[in-house]
Amino acid sequence: MSREGYIAVVNGPNLNMLGRRQPGIYGTATLDDIVASLRAGFPQLDIRHECRQGEGELVELIQRFGTDPACCGIVLNAAAYTHTSLAVADAVAAVDVPVVEVHLSNIYAREAIRRTSLLSPVCAGCICGFGAAGYALAVRALLQMK
Amino acid sequence: MSREGYIAVVNGPNLNMLGRRQPGIYGTATLDDIVASLRAGFPQLDIRHECRQGEGELVELIQRFGTDPACCGIVLNAAAYTHTSLAVADAVAAVDVPVVEVHLSNIYAREAIRRTSLLSPVCAGCICGFGAAGYALAVRALLQMK
Amino acid sequence: MSREGYIAVVNGPNLNMLGRRQPGIYGTATLDDIVASLRAGFPQLDIRHECRQGEGELVELIQRFGTDPACCGIVLNAAAYTHTSLAVADAVAAVDVPVVEVHLSNIYAREAIRRTSLLSPVCAGCICGFGAAGYALAVRALLQMK
Amino acid sequence: MSREGYIAVVNGPNLNMLGRRQPGIYGTATLDDIVASLRAGFPQLDIRHECRQGEGELVELIQRFGTDPACCGIVLNAAAYTHTSLAVADAVAAVDVPVVEVHLSNIYAREAIRRTSLLSPVCAGCICGFGAAGYALAVRALLQMK
Amino acid sequence: MSREGYIAVVNGPNLNMLGRRQPGIYGTATLDDIVASLRAGFPQLDIRHECRQGEGELVELIQRFGTDPACCGIVLNAAAYTHTSLAVADAVAAVDVPVVEVHLSNIYAREAIRRTSLLSPVCAGCICGFGAAGYALAVRALLQMK
Amino acid sequence: MSREGYIAVVNGPNLNMLGRRQPGIYGTATLDDIVASLRAGFPQLDIRHECRQGEGELVELIQRFGTDPACCGIVLNAAAYTHTSLAVADAVAAVDVPVVEVHLSNIYAREAIRRTSLLSPVCAGCICGFGAAGYALAVRALLQMK
Amino acid sequence: MSREGYIAVVNGPNLNMLGRRQPGIYGTATLDDIVASLRAGFPQLDIRHECRQGEGELVELIQRFGTDPACCGIVLNAAAYTHTSLAVADAVAAVDVPVVEVHLSNIYAREAIRRTSLLSPVCAGCICGFGAAGYALAVRALLQMK
Amino acid sequence: MSREGYIAVVNGPNLNMLGRRQPGIYGTATLDDIVASLRAGFPQLDIRHECRQGEGELVELIQRFGTDPACCGIVLNAAAYTHTSLAVADAVAAVDVPVVEVHLSNIYAREAIRRTSLLSPVCAGCICGFGAAGYALAVRALLQMK
Amino acid sequence: MSREGYIAVVNGPNLNMLGRRQPGIYGTATLDDIVASLRAGFPQLDIRHECRQGEGELVELIQRFGTDPACCGIVLNAAAYTHTSLAVADAVAAVDVPVVEVHLSNIYAREAIRRTSLLSPVCAGCICGFGAAGYALAVRALLQMK
Amino acid sequence: MSREGYIAVVNGPNLNMLGRRQPGIYGTATLDDIVASLRAGFPQLDIRHECRQGEGELVELIQRFGTDPACCGIVLNAAAYTHTSLAVADAVAAVDVPVVEVHLSNIYAREAIRRTSLLSPVCAGCICGFGAAGYALAVRALLQMK
Amino acid sequence: MSREGYIAVVNGPNLNMLGRRQPGIYGTATLDDIVASLRAGFPQLDIRHECRQGEGELVELIQRFGTDPACCGIVLNAAAYTHTSLAVADAVAAVDVPVVEVHLSNIYAREAIRRTSLLSPVCAGCICGFGAAGYALAVRALLQMK
Amino acid sequence: MSREGYIAVVNGPNLNMLGRRQPGIYGTATLDDIVASLRAGFPQLDIRHECRQGEGELVELIQRFGTDPACCGIVLNAAAYTHTSLAVADAVAAVDVPVVEVHLSNIYAREAIRRTSLLSPVCAGCICGFGAAGYALAVRALLQMK
Repeated sequence: MSREGYIAVVNGPNLNMLGRRQPGIYGTATLDDIVASLRAGFPQLDIRHECRQGEGELVELIQRFGTDPACCGIVLNAAAYTHTSLAVADAVAAVDVPVVEVHLSNIYAREAIRRTSLLSPVCAGCICGFGAAGYALAVRALLQMK
Repeated sequence: MSREGYIAVVNGPNLNMLGRRQPGIYGTATLDDIVASLRAGFPQLDIRHECRQGEGELVELIQRFGTDPACCGIVLNAAAYTHTSLAVADAVAAVDVPVVEVHLSNIYAREAIRRTSLLSPVCAGCICGFGAAGYALAVRALLQMK
Repeated sequence: MSREGYIAVVNGPNLNMLGRRQPGIYGTATLDDIVASLRAGFPQLDIRHECRQGEGELVELIQRFGTDPACCGIVLNAAAYTHTSLAVADAVAAVDVPVVEVHLSNIYAREAIRRTSLLSPVCAGCICGFGAAGYALAVRALLQMK
Repeated sequence: MSREGYIAVVNGPNLNMLGRRQPGIYGTATLDDIVASLRAGFPQLDIRHECRQGEGELVELIQRFGTDPACCGIVLNAAAYTHTSLAVADAVAAVDVPVVEVHLSNIYAREAIRRTSLLSPVCAGCICGFGAAGYALAVRALLQMK
Repeated sequence: MSREGYIAVVNGPNLNMLGRRQPGIYGTATLDDIVASLRAGFPQLDIRHECRQGEGELVELIQRFGTDPACCGIVLNAAAYTHTSLAVADAVAAVDVPVVEVHLSNIYAREAIRRTSLLSPVCAGCICGFGAAGYALAVRALLQMK
Repeated sequence: MSREGYIAVVNGPNLNMLGRRQPGIYGTATLDDIVASLRAGFPQLDIRHECRQGEGELVELIQRFGTDPACCGIVLNAAAYTHTSLAVADAVAAVDVPVVEVHLSNIYAREAIRRTSLLSPVCAGCICGFGAAGYALAVRALLQMK
Repeated sequence: MSREGYIAVVNGPNLNMLGRRQPGIYGTATLDDIVASLRAGFPQLDIRHECRQGEGELVELIQRFGTDPACCGIVLNAAAYTHTSLAVADAVAAVDVPVVEVHLSNIYAREAIRRTSLLSPVCAGCICGFGAAGYALAVRALLQMK
Repeated sequence: MSREGYIAVVNGPNLNMLGRRQPGIYGTATLDDIVASLRAGFPQLDIRHECRQGEGELVELIQRFGTDPACCGIVLNAAAYTHTSLAVADAVAAVDVPVVEVHLSNIYAREAIRRTSLLSPVCAGCICGFGAAGYALAVRALLQMK
Repeated sequence: MSREGYIAVVNGPNLNMLGRRQPGIYGTATLDDIVASLRAGFPQLDIRHECRQGEGELVELIQRFGTDPACCGIVLNAAAYTHTSLAVADAVAAVDVPVVEVHLSNIYAREAIRRTSLLSPVCAGCICGFGAAGYALAVRALLQMK
Repeated sequence: MSREGYIAVVNGPNLNMLGRRQPGIYGTATLDDIVASLRAGFPQLDIRHECRQGEGELVELIQRFGTDPACCGIVLNAAAYTHTSLAVADAVAAVDVPVVEVHLSNIYAREAIRRTSLLSPVCAGCICGFGAAGYALAVRALLQMK
Repeated sequence: MSREGYIAVVNGPNLNMLGRRQPGIYGTATLDDIVASLRAGFPQLDIRHECRQGEGELVELIQRFGTDPACCGIVLNAAAYTHTSLAVADAVAAVDVPVVEVHLSNIYAREAIRRTSLLSPVCAGCICGFGAAGYALAVRALLQMK
Repeated sequence: MSREGYIAVVNGPNLNMLGRRQPGIYGTATLDDIVASLRAGFPQLDIRHECRQGEGELVELIQRFGTDPACCGIVLNAAAYTHTSLAVADAVAAVDVPVVEVHLSNIYAREAIRRTSLLSPVCAGCICGFGAAGYALAVRALLQMK
């Protein structure tokens, strides 16, 4: 992966609330903290970040990044849309750029509706349960795909 | 609940069509009529109303009202998203303000897909089947929560 | 609703245990406290209350109240029978008086078997999750039905 | 079947409401009318009739009739308990007298919960969909069994 | 039902084997015996009988009898097609003549696949579990329908 | 599609009853009317029509038309067999001629058993809900396939 | 467990028929024999026995014994209600006295509906398959709970 | 359908990617090509086209076109929302203009989640499996509805 | 098995198409080739072969062969009816001659609907996945049954 | 049961971890403590104990004990294999010695996968929820079987 | 298949009990008898036999035989692991040698859990219901594969 | 994580076949290659590797490593046991050492049985779909847990 390219980090609904609400559960790190920490961990990389609440907006982001020749890969935490959005899954399937699915919690240890990911069948791989550290692992996974 | 605060009424997709289409089914009262009647019933309260068609827009409204110290509670009729949106449910779970779920019809007496509410597990309570009168009951329920 | 009529409040199995057992969970208010508070809230109304443990006894109460011209409506908390009794549902369907379903807890946030109400399809409406306050909301809902 | 014996007709919950409520649906014949007509149709038979609202009461009736040497057979319309009562089914299985299941409506043409009879596997046979005439057919079926 | 009309008895696949195979299970009465006995029991009636192995043949029989002004009713034992043939059900639904479903055994006491009748929702009523005597009960049921 | 070829229209069970029974539901047009109207709409085409009640007969028709070099395509309304016949589906899969599935009503808006088509996975496409007009649309679809 | 207390044995529907019907299946011991044998096995204990057919009656018994300070534990064979009564389960959950579930037969080796116990989740433990001897094992289990 | 009116073609998420990605699968025709070809095929019609990624945006489009007296019908390819959006289904149900559902591929031959259309029950009819040609068939179907 | 008897080979729908269509999938051997090869492999046996498209026709063949004292066994490849025909299963159950089920492909490795055989519970045994060679194995299995 | 025989106690996977890990949950008693306590409680009995992690090893133990004439019965806590091992169930079914199933916790009050025991249908009986005391109850149950 | 190679017969859990227990059900032939008879039937073949109780041991045997160039094929009766072991299925899928699945009984005629074979999708074919004779049929099937 | 500790890599059934069979699917890298590459990537770490075919053996390995104070974490690829072994899941739950689940392929994009992991609910996190690179990511994830 050449220096010229960038990696896109796309976050879905309610992830903007991280660190501000329910710190007992999700910790005190905000989404900005996570992104800052991610950039600090990979200083040589151009990491772009977007967070959206709408399903259609996520579709548009994935289309935009996924058809941009300068984009080397997408790290996607679609939050609730992971389990309900076939549209986001279709967007991932429609682009050539590798997409890595990330979840802060171990979704497979949660309630039934969160144990089915509509995205997993079309993503390159999945990393879940490692909290904020999962984003760095996902970037690393993208780097290893060459 | 002090006078300073306000109560937010949030309506979801297609509720803007109330009273204008299929009056034989839904009556001739528009959403504006319902809100006006609600304000008339609680003249001492500041009631704010929003209606949105998009899932992401509902998420944003709930986040906005739910994190506003002046907001004392949310009356939420998420319409179709009640049954399909985990994102709206996550938004409700992420805010501290009590949210009361309202449905005009008795959703549990309707077709199978409408008998499952993704919101019920995270709302304070649910009122359904009383038509427009349900909004006033929901406000009253919020008032009784102190 | 004229003063002449009365409203019947019917409670099902184990609700007689309220306030006496597991106060940490259900609070210290007994069923008598709830009914007294309800009467205090609606001093102008004649509110009659019955609590029974048996499914057949609930059927008989609903038939009796539901065919009494003086009865203006029934507030029904069928407790466990909500989820298992088609006989109680048939009784509700067989009478003309409006029946409002009440639940102290948000049954839709509980274990699977409690998420299906056999009564909802035949009741006028449902109020759940507001604790003892739900009875007053139910009476109010009946009053609004004219 | 000798003249000495009698046939027991046992009706379950809400059948006592027949003819008094919703005549548009169930007709104007009361349960008394049905039993009178049944006796008129079989003047040579001793037909005893009981109607109960409680599941346990039905169990007791079936045990009482089913262990009475003078009883030649039971015609059972368990109404809602048909679909929910394993206790009634166990009672039927525990007695030697033949029990014929009757339903006024065609239960297999109704909503899902009414399409499963817990009693069918233990009854001698089933007659449904013929309205009040089904009772006479059931008595005739019992007579043909010996 | 005037004397001019006739009643059609239609039997489905493998019922022609009755009495000839597995007498320990199904008895020694053949289908001819059953029909002869049925005619003997109703000497005043014109009873016509057909037995077919094919699904399409049953559809044709039901259409033929069901559109014949002289036919007063159909007694139908569709055997295995009861559980698998939507085409036979559609034929029953397409004719105006009342159709009574008969089964020798109590199908609701047998293996799962035999507990669902596709015909019940479109037949006038159902009689099962009384062996050959069920045909006579079905004819009687038709006579009582006027 | 050259003029030499023909298009086969194959109708399944109970479609021969169209227009003769239940005109309130299905209209007064008979199957002959529909075919005549279809031929009138495509005067330049050789349209052959067959209607059969039996599953095996439909299989044979599809095999015959599907292996005839002069046949350019099949318009198939298998009626009830759409939902129950794997044999018809296998026949469609075994021939090279394109087969277009047609349904008068919108089967996906009907009861559960009619919402699954065993034929859809092997047909070229499906047209449903447009009544008799669907046949003309299906012929047009075949013409556009070249 | 001090001598002052007593142990309550509660039996549900149809257990009163034990030994009197179908001795080939259930043996010739009556419920009285079982209770007598139980008392003989624990001469130092005060064992009280009740058998009821009604669901509500079982609820009342469990409430009465379960709130009596002199009661040290309940041995409960709810028979058919084991599988259908959420009300009995709620009663068990509402009392502090330990309740041990007993079944004569191995319910988990029987038909599907008997393989689910609504009581198991709220009972202290379960003993099944040992016939009448299971009652003594249950008493012993209660004694070991101190 | 008079010349004054227009037909609205509404496309959902990821259909804007047609022809640009995965040409081996979806061909090289873009959405613009399809619309241009559609207009060329119906030169006498005013065809308006919109494509949106968001569920709420589709709801708004359907409301807008569906309440516009000049709109004669809607051709709707809701893509992934076909299978997940009750909100779009409610919008279709709320308008009086006929809506025809179109799918490029035969959705009933694809993976399980794509075999259920939430829109079919409320659309006038459905056309699927004919690729881009399906749009022209849908317009033709609308024209035939008068 | 004495020389006097014969073995019947019964093939179901679409097997007549073998070798003529889709040779890439099913090979170039026709059903005639398979039967010829089978006879060549067992020159000492009288092997009779029938292939039918209709469910009722298969029922009739099995009844005819199965009640013929000269028939020593039936090799049955019911093709699609394997999975949908309870009537064929009933025919197999009704005859005393052993029936061996054969499938060319490994049906348990195919799509869900082909993984359930209604015939297996009533056949002597099953052989699948060995292509045309399966018929010879089935004959051999019949010979070993004596 | 004569003194000559012995009783085998067989424990399955992870039970060797008892008392050493998670004492807050499972207590501080080790498996050795439990066995020692069991032997102390039945000083007159020869109690042999084995604990294995492997499914095949449990099968071998049950076969070995179950075919040893000196073995009077087996107390089996198969832990996780209770819910997943048909092989262990087959081993239990293959031996004549009575096998009593024991579980420390009330498996029917735990997560779904632990509520199905493959062993219950083939064991003599089941004891669960009494902790270590369950082993002594199981031995007592075996003694009572003679 | 040249003489140099050998055929491996692999038997799973509890098959070592054949003939020694429950002769009324499984006959008196032991596994040794079956293997001896198999060798007698194919004197020209080198037949190697192994029987294991453990899932991992079966995996190892299949890997060992399946990667041995001298092995021409595997006859596998995995007994209970047929229905529960994905690991054995993966082992079969991982080797190039053809594997034929054998079952003594007709597993598809037994209880539900035995009607699903995890091995069928990866085996060359399946033979079941012919008792010990099935092994010889399986060897013959392997020989016919080349 | 101090240098003194080590990380255990545990592989399950059939992973020993990697690189030796089906290189077109799984690549040519053997398990030894993967482990060597892993050690090369983390030269400062003590990485211990074990591969076992048996479920019980995996349980023992996890217990051994998981109770060894020198072990800092376990990287577990349980292969097929991921989906079938509750015993392995119980072992993971019984140890305090963090366990990271790894899968070479994206199991959530495979057949149904592989989309449920019994291990996910008890593992710290999950990494799947990145091939051999997943092991390095898992080690890195463990290092980040401190």
